[in-house]
This record gives sequence, structure tokens and C-alpha cells, in this order.
Amino acid sequence: MMGVDKNRQWRLARRPKGMVTEADFTYHEGAVPEPADGHCLVRTLYVSFDPAMRAFLNEGPSYVPAQPVGEVMRAGAVGQIVDSRCAGFDAGSFVVGGFGWQDYAAVPGSAVMKVDARFPLPHYLSVLGGTGLTAYFGLLRVGEPKPGETVVVSGAAGATGSTVVQIARIKGCRTVGIAGGAAKCRWLTDELHVAGAIDYRANALTERLRELCPDGIHVYFDNVGGTVLEAAIRNMALHGRIVVCGMISVYNAEQPQPGPSNLFELVTRRVRMEGFLVGDYAAEFAEGRRELETWLDSGALKAYVDVQAGFENIPRTFLRLFTGRNVGKQVLKLADPPLQR
Amino acid sequence: MMGVDKNRQWRLARRPKGMVTEADFTYHEGAVPEPADGHCLVRTLYVSFDPAMRAFLNEGPSYVPAQPVGEVMRAGAVGQIVDSRCAGFDAGSFVVGGFGWQDYAAVPGSAVMKVDARFPLPHYLSVLGGTGLTAYFGLLRVGEPKPGETVVVSGAAGATGSTVVQIARIKGCRTVGIAGGAAKCRWLTDELHVAGAIDYRANALTERLRELCPDGIHVYFDNVGGTVLEAAIRNMALHGRIVVCGMISVYNAEQPQPGPSNLFELVTRRVRMEGFLVGDYAAEFAEGRRELETWLDSGALKAYVDVQAGFENIPRTFLRLFTGRNVGKQVLKLADPPLQR
Repeated sequence: MMGVDKNRQWRLARRPKGMVTEADFTYHEGAVPEPADGHCLVRTLYVSFDPAMRAFLNEGPSYVPAQPVGEVMRAGAVGQIVDSRCAGFDAGSFVVGGFGWQDYAAVPGSAVMKVDARFPLPHYLSVLGGTGLTAYFGLLRVGEPKPGETVVVSGAAGATGSTVVQIARIKGCRTVGIAGGAAKCRWLTDELHVAGAIDYRANALTERLRELCPDGIHVYFDNVGGTVLEAAIRNMALHGRIVVCGMISVYNAEQPQPGPSNLFELVTRRVRMEGFLVGDYAAEFAEGRRELETWLDSGALKAYVDVQAGFENIPRTFLRLFTGRNVGKQVLKLADPPLQR
Repeated sequence: MMGVDKNRQWRLARRPKGMVTEADFTYHEGAVPEPADGHCLVRTLYVSFDPAMRAFLNEGPSYVPAQPVGEVMRAGAVGQIVDSRCAGFDAGSFVVGGFGWQDYAAVPGSAVMKVDARFPLPHYLSVLGGTGLTAYFGLLRVGEPKPGETVVVSGAAGATGSTVVQIARIKGCRTVGIAGGAAKCRWLTDELHVAGAIDYRANALTERLRELCPDGIHVYFDNVGGTVLEAAIRNMALHGRIVVCGMISVYNAEQPQPGPSNLFELVTRRVRMEGFLVGDYAAEFAEGRRELETWLDSGALKAYVDVQAGFENIPRTFLRLFTGRNVGKQVLKLADPPLQR
């Protein structure tokens, strides 16, 4: 084994009240764990940051148990097996799993997925990871876009959003992206080639959507919720579909935030609004990944990744998601692969 | 022609601000119209009152044009042809159509639908009219209930709601009804045999739903919106379906009402929420009516109708919908059939 001989961790210190802060986490050092029989020891190379992680910090109903206070922060990551006591998992293999905000994780073989590392490692957390699969199944299975339809994406410069925009374009749809700030909107236009980009901070959103979607919105892929969702509902086309993927506008709210006031418009234009979790499509992940890889190979799809570095920067990198700093997938690099293959 | 020799009308005087009042309508008398070629003259026998009519009084986006100020109030009705200049439509036939708040309407043959009058005439405005078809297609096509599932209905003592409860029971579902007041709740229990009735005015709705739906709500049929919808969302089962049929809680609101604050729960439990209008199923109305008639014949389905009387009482009968006075379908009888068949 090489590299550090201790295991650094960030643990949840307390449940955040309102906006999450660095003080909600505590730094901890301990021994590198020994893998038990059937387990392997993984060195974390890149950790993944997802807005939904903020929701897991709260108690209350969600689709996974709340992150326990005092324990190492749960997080997806890509790593390399440095020691294996698990048949079929060899040292040197690159793996994806919930390794958390720590240098090392000793995990059972059932909790890791080997990746072939044909693409850069962060790809396996972005377009080839949960993010890409979320975009793929959410847009195609829940949104059901048809060629020529208008697909509007909020959080369009984010990890999932930027992938949704690209897949919608691949499928022959017209795309409109909503993001925060002029820089992101320029990026959406120049890099993702959206038909229209809207800065939700600067624009009268309802009116801009009306201008950019004169035939209405056929598919709205929502990562944001709140007033952005309300403006989208106002502009939905007849029989439009709203894919409810995330609601970053409410994750940090201290009080319940009022929902859109215009839900009756779901009736007037017979809109379907559907909540969605990628895990429901687990049986089809391999097929989805294959198509995403094909698009990556052809250049039709790109992975946009914002790579930060430094173990000490993990909590503040998490905060970047909620201050609108990241473009594309937010990851943080902890180490280069420690083992030669 | 027999009966009155003038045509009484109620017209919209002005757009209501907030809660609709009697003063929003004006009484008018005129000559009985002459049917033009291809038209027939219909004597209105029963007029139909629907909560959605309140929404049509407002300007703004809806699925039908706003009711024009100064014109006779649009309303569904059942009547009898008293004079016909339209081939295939004979005097004496009973017909359903949008005859409005007036004694007589001269309408083209294309705007009336003949009914066989095998059932009492109000049935053709309730379980065999738009109300029954709304319940039928909304519940079965959008809600997709399976035997043994729990179906929760708001406005359960209303026209659509009481029909939804009965169809859900016919389909082998467990039913829970939400209504306003102890009397309606007793009626739901004694007459509709719901597994549970909740008085939304008296009860902590979220907690009562949790008690009565320990496995969650599989189908929520919403006629109400607002805080009732919020409480239902909190209790939806995994992959539950919300049929958005109406939102009586917002029709009279002067200001936009905040929507449910917990829409993120659509994600956590992958809930589908879908707006619905019965008109989309027009091609299947005949088939739906046939099944509803079969259930009426067998006694599995009953028509609950609140019959008021007196032309002068039309506006105040409309207001009954919004003060929770009616049980079952609200109609008003204008006349007995004027012609012998």
C-alpha cells in the first residue's frame, strides 16, 4: 500500500439549519481500516457532490435514511482497490461506490462496481455514473421527448442538466436552458448549443419562456422547483410532461417553501408531472451506459466536470453546489491512482 | 309550444372578485328565440352546476374561453326539443347540451346530444353526463387503480367525488373520502360505505390520512387542491398516482394561492400527478356510458343529485357549490317535460 498511512474523514457534525455551512462538518483522522473477509480496501480518488446530498442531511421522509450525525459523510466516489480479501476483486481495479468523504473505505465486494477506466475516471461519476443515468432515464422514460419538441431544462449548467440538454439534442429536440448568471448562459449557448438560455436571476422567467417556447414546453426537466417550476407550468404545452428530478431551491430552506400557485394549469393543459429516481431503472443501467458510451465515443455527448482538489476543501466544494459555482459535474480529486495496473 | 312565452335568462354582470356572489349576475327577459334552419329550439328542464364554471368566470388561461360579461351564463343542461328545423331531431326528444341559464335555447343539431330518458333526466347531468364520465375516465385511465389499493377522494360528497368513490369500490379498491363537515362524513360512511371518512375542517388531515392509509395512498383523486392536496402528497404510496381533476379551493381566490410545499415528495416516492379533462376521452364516451348504465342497472352505482327549483334561485344554487351545501350533483329543475312523447 502506498500514499497516506492514515485515513482522513469529514463527518457530519450536526444537522444544518437552513443553508449548509462548513461548520456543519468536522475533520477526523484515524487508522486505515483493515478489510475483513469478503471486503476490499478502496483508496478514494475522486469524490462526487450531488445537490440531493443536502436533502439527506435532514431528518424526515426521503428515499434514503438520513445521514447519521457523527459518521463519515456518505458520498459516491471512484477509487482503486489497494487490498482485496474478496474473490473477483483484484488490487489495482478501479471501482465506483459509496466510499464517502474519506481516503479509504473497507467495503464488501457487493458494494462496489468495477469500471474499465476506458474513459477518464471522473466520467464514472458524471455522464457514466448516476448523473448520466439520471439524465438518460429521466428524460427518455419519464419525459418521453419526441423529435422536434421543445425541452426546457432548469439547472441546465449543472451535472444532470447539462447531460439532459445534450441527450435532448441527440434525440432531435429543441432545447432551452435555465441557469443562474450570464456566464452560465453564455456557456449554455456556446458550448451546449441551446436554442435559448435564460438567466433566472435577471429575467422575467415566465415571459422569457413564452418568447423562447412559442409552441409551449413539451418536456420540462426540473432540477430546481419553486418559482422556476411555477414559470414552467405556466408555459407547458398541451399534454406536456414535467420530470421532477430535483428541487435544489428547497433543499436548504429552513421553513417549508410554498409550491407553485398555478397547479390548476396541470388540468387546463393536461400536464403530467412525475417524480423520478434513477434507482428504479437499475435493471437497465448496463443498456443505458452502453448508449451513453456510444455517444461519448462519437463526440455527440461530452462530460463537463468541475474538478476541485485537496481533502481539506471537501466541505467548501460541497457548498459550491448551492452558491451556483459549478459548471457541469462537481467532483474533487483526492489522489492519483496509487497502484500501477 | 307550451309553458312560458318568454325567455328568462341569467347573465354574467361582471367578473367576480374573489368569492362569487348573486350580484355578479343579472336577470333578463326576452322573446323566445326562433330556431333558424338546421337548429332546434330546446326548453331547458334541468340545469347543471359545476365548480369549474367558477374558473370560467375569470379571464386568463383555461381550457375554454372565459364566460363573456353581459351574455347568458353558459351551463350544461338537459332539455326537450319543442320545435325543430333540423333533420333527425324531432320535437319531444330529450337532449343534453350547453343550453345555459335560460328557459329556451335555439341551437344547431350538432350542439345537442339525444338521450333515451330510460333513467331520470338528472342522471344525464350526473352519473351519465360529464360528471360520471369525468369520474370514470379520470379514475380508471389516469388513476389506474388496482384491486386492493387505497383510493382517496377529496370533495368525496360532491358530484364527481361520490361517483369516483363508487367506481373505486366497484373495482375492488379500499376507499377513503374527504369532505367538509360531520354530516357529509356520516353520509360517506353510511351511504357510500367508505372505509374511512375525514372531515377536513375538523381533523389534522395529514395525521388522519396516515391512520386511515397505513400502506399509503395509491390513487388520490383531487377535486380540491391546496392544503388537502399537500396532506395527500405527504401520504402517497410509492409510485402513487394523483389525478388532478379540480381545485375548488382556488377557484374563488382573489390572489394566487400558494401550492403544496412538499412537491419534492413526488420524487422521494416517485409519484405521478396528472391533470385531466374528460374531453380528451370523447371517442370513448359511448363505451364509458354503457358501463355506467350497466352499473346503474345492477344497483352497484347510484346517482346522488341535489335538486333545487325555481328560475330565480339559479345564482344562489350556483353558490351552494362553494359553501359546501350540496351532496352529490347540484342541479336545478326549471320545468317538467312540456311535450308528451
